[in-house]
Amino acid sequence: MGNIEDYKYLTHIDYPADLRKLKVEQLPQVCDELRKDIIEELAVNPGHLASSLGVVELTVALHYVYDTPYDRIVWDVGHQAYGHKILTGRRDKFCTNRKLNGIKPFPHPDESEYDTFCCGHASNSISAALGMAVAANLNKEARKVVAVIGDGAMSGGLAFEGINNAASTPNDMLIILNDNNMSIDRSVGGMRQYLLQLTTNSTYNSIRFKISQKLFQWGLLDDKKRKGILRFNNSVKSLLTRQQNLFEGMDIRYFGPTDGNDVIELVRILRSIKDMKGPKLLHLHTKKGKGYAPAEQDATVWHAPGKFDYESGERITSNDGTPRPPKFQDVFGETLLELAQKNPRIVGVTPAMPTGCSMNIMMNAMPHRVFDVGIAEGHAVTFSGGMAKDGLMPFCNIYSSFMQRAYDNIIHDAATMSLNMVLCLDRAGIVGEDGPTHHGAYDMAYLRPIPNLTIASPLNERDLRNLMYTAQLPGKGTFVIRYPRGSGTMIDWHTEMEEIPVGRGRKLKDGNDTAVLTIGPIGVEASKAIAIAEMKAANEGHNISVAHYDMLFLKPIDEHLLHEVAKRYEHIITVEDGVINGGMGSAVLEFLSDHGYDTKVKRIGMPDSFVTHGTVSQLRKLCGMDAESIADAILKADSLNTLC
Amino acid sequence: MGNIEDYKYLTHIDYPADLRKLKVEQLPQVCDELRKDIIEELAVNPGHLASSLGVVELTVALHYVYDTPYDRIVWDVGHQAYGHKILTGRRDKFCTNRKLNGIKPFPHPDESEYDTFCCGHASNSISAALGMAVAANLNKEARKVVAVIGDGAMSGGLAFEGINNAASTPNDMLIILNDNNMSIDRSVGGMRQYLLQLTTNSTYNSIRFKISQKLFQWGLLDDKKRKGILRFNNSVKSLLTRQQNLFEGMDIRYFGPTDGNDVIELVRILRSIKDMKGPKLLHLHTKKGKGYAPAEQDATVWHAPGKFDYESGERITSNDGTPRPPKFQDVFGETLLELAQKNPRIVGVTPAMPTGCSMNIMMNAMPHRVFDVGIAEGHAVTFSGGMAKDGLMPFCNIYSSFMQRAYDNIIHDAATMSLNMVLCLDRAGIVGEDGPTHHGAYDMAYLRPIPNLTIASPLNERDLRNLMYTAQLPGKGTFVIRYPRGSGTMIDWHTEMEEIPVGRGRKLKDGNDTAVLTIGPIGVEASKAIAIAEMKAANEGHNISVAHYDMLFLKPIDEHLLHEVAKRYEHIITVEDGVINGGMGSAVLEFLSDHGYDTKVKRIGMPDSFVTHGTVSQLRKLCGMDAESIADAILKADSLNTLC
Repeated sequence: MGNIEDYKYLTHIDYPADLRKLKVEQLPQVCDELRKDIIEELAVNPGHLASSLGVVELTVALHYVYDTPYDRIVWDVGHQAYGHKILTGRRDKFCTNRKLNGIKPFPHPDESEYDTFCCGHASNSISAALGMAVAANLNKEARKVVAVIGDGAMSGGLAFEGINNAASTPNDMLIILNDNNMSIDRSVGGMRQYLLQLTTNSTYNSIRFKISQKLFQWGLLDDKKRKGILRFNNSVKSLLTRQQNLFEGMDIRYFGPTDGNDVIELVRILRSIKDMKGPKLLHLHTKKGKGYAPAEQDATVWHAPGKFDYESGERITSNDGTPRPPKFQDVFGETLLELAQKNPRIVGVTPAMPTGCSMNIMMNAMPHRVFDVGIAEGHAVTFSGGMAKDGLMPFCNIYSSFMQRAYDNIIHDAATMSLNMVLCLDRAGIVGEDGPTHHGAYDMAYLRPIPNLTIASPLNERDLRNLMYTAQLPGKGTFVIRYPRGSGTMIDWHTEMEEIPVGRGRKLKDGNDTAVLTIGPIGVEASKAIAIAEMKAANEGHNISVAHYDMLFLKPIDEHLLHEVAKRYEHIITVEDGVINGGMGSAVLEFLSDHGYDTKVKRIGMPDSFVTHGTVSQLRKLCGMDAESIADAILKADSLNTLC
Repeated sequence: MGNIEDYKYLTHIDYPADLRKLKVEQLPQVCDELRKDIIEELAVNPGHLASSLGVVELTVALHYVYDTPYDRIVWDVGHQAYGHKILTGRRDKFCTNRKLNGIKPFPHPDESEYDTFCCGHASNSISAALGMAVAANLNKEARKVVAVIGDGAMSGGLAFEGINNAASTPNDMLIILNDNNMSIDRSVGGMRQYLLQLTTNSTYNSIRFKISQKLFQWGLLDDKKRKGILRFNNSVKSLLTRQQNLFEGMDIRYFGPTDGNDVIELVRILRSIKDMKGPKLLHLHTKKGKGYAPAEQDATVWHAPGKFDYESGERITSNDGTPRPPKFQDVFGETLLELAQKNPRIVGVTPAMPTGCSMNIMMNAMPHRVFDVGIAEGHAVTFSGGMAKDGLMPFCNIYSSFMQRAYDNIIHDAATMSLNMVLCLDRAGIVGEDGPTHHGAYDMAYLRPIPNLTIASPLNERDLRNLMYTAQLPGKGTFVIRYPRGSGTMIDWHTEMEEIPVGRGRKLKDGNDTAVLTIGPIGVEASKAIAIAEMKAANEGHNISVAHYDMLFLKPIDEHLLHEVAKRYEHIITVEDGVINGGMGSAVLEFLSDHGYDTKVKRIGMPDSFVTHGTVSQLRKLCGMDAESIADAILKADSLNTLC
C-alpha cells in the first residue's frame, strides 16, 4: 500500500458508488492516486505492472460511467485489472494480491461481484460478454455489457469468433479495443498492421460521431434506421478517408481511435455511446506502463518486473554474484540456438512469448527462422505441422496451460500424421502466484490418450538438452517435452548433448523396500524425500532402503523398467507435477493391471480440484508434493510393508 | 463407378499429368465427366455429395494449372475432395471410399502424395499451407502453395489466426475462398455479411486485375513496389467502390469475386496470379450441389444424402414402415424443445450443426433462443459460459471430436467458475465411415481430469432425457452428456422425465462371477455379450453368472457401487466407447488402487492408435468391443476365476 494519508480521494473510494459521487474534473487526480498506489504496492509485492498502469484512466472512466456491478465489465486477461480491484472493495487487501490466501491474481466471480468472468487466458472477453449481453436481452434487463480487450488478445482466434458472432447476433455490447501495440512482447500479425492503418483516421471519426449524436438527439436516428445509416456512413467514410474498416465491414459500429489515457475525454465518449443500440467498438490508444517512466520505456521488461525501487526505478534482483542454476526456459532458449546452428531444418514458433520462453535468443541470432505468430496457440501448432510436413523441424514452445487451446491441433494436425516436430511445454506443473488458470496441471493427462505422441519430461538441465537433441533427430515423430517454470539444479548445465533412447527411464537409486517413480524435476523433491524418510526411519532404529526411478518418458512408458519395479517391490509411490487423474500414476496403474501385478500404488500429484495461488513451495505442500509429505507417504508405505 | 465407356477423357486421366496434356477447351467436358462419375458413385456408395460437386471446376483447374504433387494444394475439410481423389490415382479405388480397408474418407498424406495434409476438421488449411509456404522459402524451393477454404470454415478462429499470421509472414501463398454461403447448414456471422458485401464489387476488381497484369508484363511492377502499389490500389478501390476489404486491410492481395464453376475462366485467373509474390486471396462463388438439380435445390439435405436414384433424384431410405428407435440426436432435439417450453432460461447453442445435432427442432420453434454461432467451437462454449454466468441455462451441443477445439474453454470459461450449463457431446465414440478424425475417442479421457465437471453418458433414450432434465435443474454446475452417432434401442422413447441422482450408477443384472462395468449405449453390446458368454459356458456344462453395472456417470464416479463390486467380484471387465488410456476403466483402476483392492481388471475400449474408418460394427469388432469379443473376455476372466 502507498501512504494512505497522501490520497485526497482514493482513501475514500471503497466502491465505484463512491467514485461516482465525484465530479468529472476530480477524476484526473483519482487516476494519479490510483496509479501511485499500484506502483508503490508492486514495488514491494511483485505483479503485473505495465498493463495495469496503461488502463488506469479507462478503469476509472468505466466504473464512473457504468453502473457496476449491475452493468458488466469483462476484462480480457486480468493482468490489467489491478486498478479495478482497488476500486471495487479490495484496496485494503491489495497487499495480499497473488499471495496464498490473499486476493486472486486474476479477477474471478468467486471473489467479487464486480469480477464478471474468469480472465486468466487471453481473448475470451468478447465471447463471454456477448453471452451476457444476450442474457440481458432475453431476461429483459437494461444491463450494459462492456468487453475490454487488448490488441494482443485480438489476434486470438477466439476473439475473432466472438466478433464474427457479435456482428450477427442482436446485442448492445460495447467492445473496447485497448490498443497499446503490445501483448507481453510487441504485437504481430495482420491485425496489428490493420490497427495501425486505422489510427490515421481520427478527424473523420470525430466528425461522424458528433453528427450521429446530434441525429439521435434530434430524434432523426433510431434503431430501425441505424443499420442503413451505418452502411451509408461507412461508405462516406471510405470516400473521405480512403480507409477500410474491418469492424464496420462486419456491421459493428466503430468509434476511435481515441487517447485512452485522457480520463475526461473517455467519460465524455462513454456517456455518449453507452445507450446506443447494436454492437459497437471503441478503439483506444493507451500506453503500457503509462505514468511510470521506466515502465513506459521498456514495457516488456516491466510487464512483470519483480520488486523494484519506486524512486530510482531500479529493479531489485537477489543476485549476490553466487552462481545459480539457470531457468529451464533459458536452457531451452540457449540449447535451441545451439541446435539450430547445427541443424538448418530447425525453426522456432512461439505464440507471443519469445521473451517468456527465451526463444528471443534464437530470434535475435536468426530472425528469419523464428516465427512469433501472436496470441494464437492453435495456429502455432498447425503452422508448425505444415512446416514439418515439408521437411522443416519446428520447435513450437507454448506454456502448458495455454497448450490447452491447441488440443485439437495436436491431435489432428500433428499426431494423425506423426509429423516430425517438437512441442515444448514451458510452465508445466505448479506455476505459483498466477494460480489456477496458469498451472500446467493437465497436460500429461490430456496428452497421454493421444496416439503416436512421444511425451517426455527432463529431471534436470542435462536431460532437457538431451531430450531436445534427441527430438530433432530424424524420424522421431511428434515429440512433447514438458518442463516447469523456474530453475533446475545444475550450475554447469552446458553439457555435451547425446541421444537418449526414447521410452527408456532409469534407476536413480537402488533400494529394497518401496520404489518411488517420478517424472520431471519434481524428482529432485522426491530424492530429498527419500533421504528424509530413510533418515527418519534410521533414527527410529529401523533401516529402510527406498529405490528411486526416473521415468523420463510418460509415453511410450518404460515397460521393461516397470516389470522390474513390479517384480521387486510391493509398494510403488508415483510422484508427478500434474493432476493425478489420468496422469503418470494412472499410466502405471494401467500397466500393472494389464500385466496382472498386485503391486500397491500411492499416487502423488495435483488433486482433482483447482489448485489456488501462492508460492510454488507453499502449493506443493498443500498438494502433498513437497519433500516432507512425500517422505511421510514413503514411511506410511513402509509401515504397510512391515505389516504384510 | 460410372460406365467407364461413357467417358471420353476421364478414363484416360490417371494422374494430373494426364490432365495437363489436354487443351483448356477440353476441360469443361472433363468436368462434366468427373461430376457424373461422382454422382453415379455416390448414388450407390453414400458419401458427401454436394460440396464435392461444387468444386469440380476448381479441382480440375488447380491440377491443370499447378504442378501437383510438387506444388501443394491444401484442402480445408476433405468432404469436397472427391474429385481430387479421382484425378490423383484413385479413380479405380473410388468405389471403396469410406469403406473398411478402402480409401480414406478425407485426404491424408499416408494415402497419396497429392494429399498434403490431414483435413477432417475445418479451418486448418491456411495455417498448414502457410507452414508449407514458409518451408518452401527456407528450403529455396520454387514450390507454390494453395489453401482452399470454404466460407463456413472461414468463421473458425483458426482460419483467422492463419490469415492474421499470413499477412505478416513473408510467403507467396494463394488462399482460395470457396464461397457457397454454406457450411453444412447455411453460413452465419459477420464474415458472411462481409462476404456478401464484397460480391457487389466485381467490376472494379476485374479492371484492377487487368491493370496489374499489364504492369507486371511491362516490367513496371515488381515485388519491391508491390506493397506500396497494393496500398494505393486499395485506396483507389475504396474511392471507386465505397467498399471495405478486410483482406486488403491486412495486406493480403484480394482477387474476385469470380464464378468458381467456370473452369476456363478459373484456369485463366490461376495462371495469371500463380507467380505473383506475396500472400493473395482469390474469392470464388460456387454452387454447392452444382450440376445435380436435386442437390442444387437443397444442399443441406444433399450434403451427405445416403443412397439415391441417379435418374429420379429420389433418396433411397430403408424405411419399410416398421417402427424403429430414434436417433439419439433426435431424442436430444425433441427433448430440448420440450424442456425449453417449460424452463424459460434454456437456450441452445450450436457451432454450425443445427441439423446435425437436431437443434433445428428448437430453432424452428424458438428462433430467438437458439444461437448458431458458425464453425466456432471455442466461442460456442465461452459464449455459453457468459450466458450461464448471467442466469440462462445453455445447452451447447458439439460433436465429441470437434469439442477438442474447445478444451481450454471448458476448463477456463466453464469449470473454473462451476457455471450451470450443459455440454452435449454428440457423435461420442466410434462414428464409422468418417474415420479417425471424427471418432469421438478422447472426450472421456480429456474431460475426466478437469475439476468440477459432471460427466455422464446415457445407456438409452430414457436416460438421455432424464440426464438432460437433471442437468438443467438449478445448481448442477457444468454438466457433460455424451452420446453416440446413430440410434438407441427404445421405440417408445418419449418417456416421462425424472431427476437422476448425480454420480449414481446402477446394477442392470446380478451375478456371482465376473462383473462387467459399462458406460453409455455400448452397455447394450455388453448385455448381449453377457448372454452369449453365459450361454456358451452353459453349453459346455459350466454355469456362470455375470453381473452388469451401468456406471452412467464417469464423474463423479459411483464409489458406493465400486466398493460393492470390488468386494463381491474377483474380476471386473470395463467396457467403454472411447480410448482406454485414461478413460473410464482407468478411473476404476484409480479407485481400486486408492482403496487398496486387489480386484483384477480387464479394460475394453478403443486402443492407443488411430482407429480406421468402416462401419461401426466392423470397427467395434476391430477394437474388440463387439458382443462376441466382450463375451470372449468374460469367458477368459471366468477361466482365470476358476484357476484361482
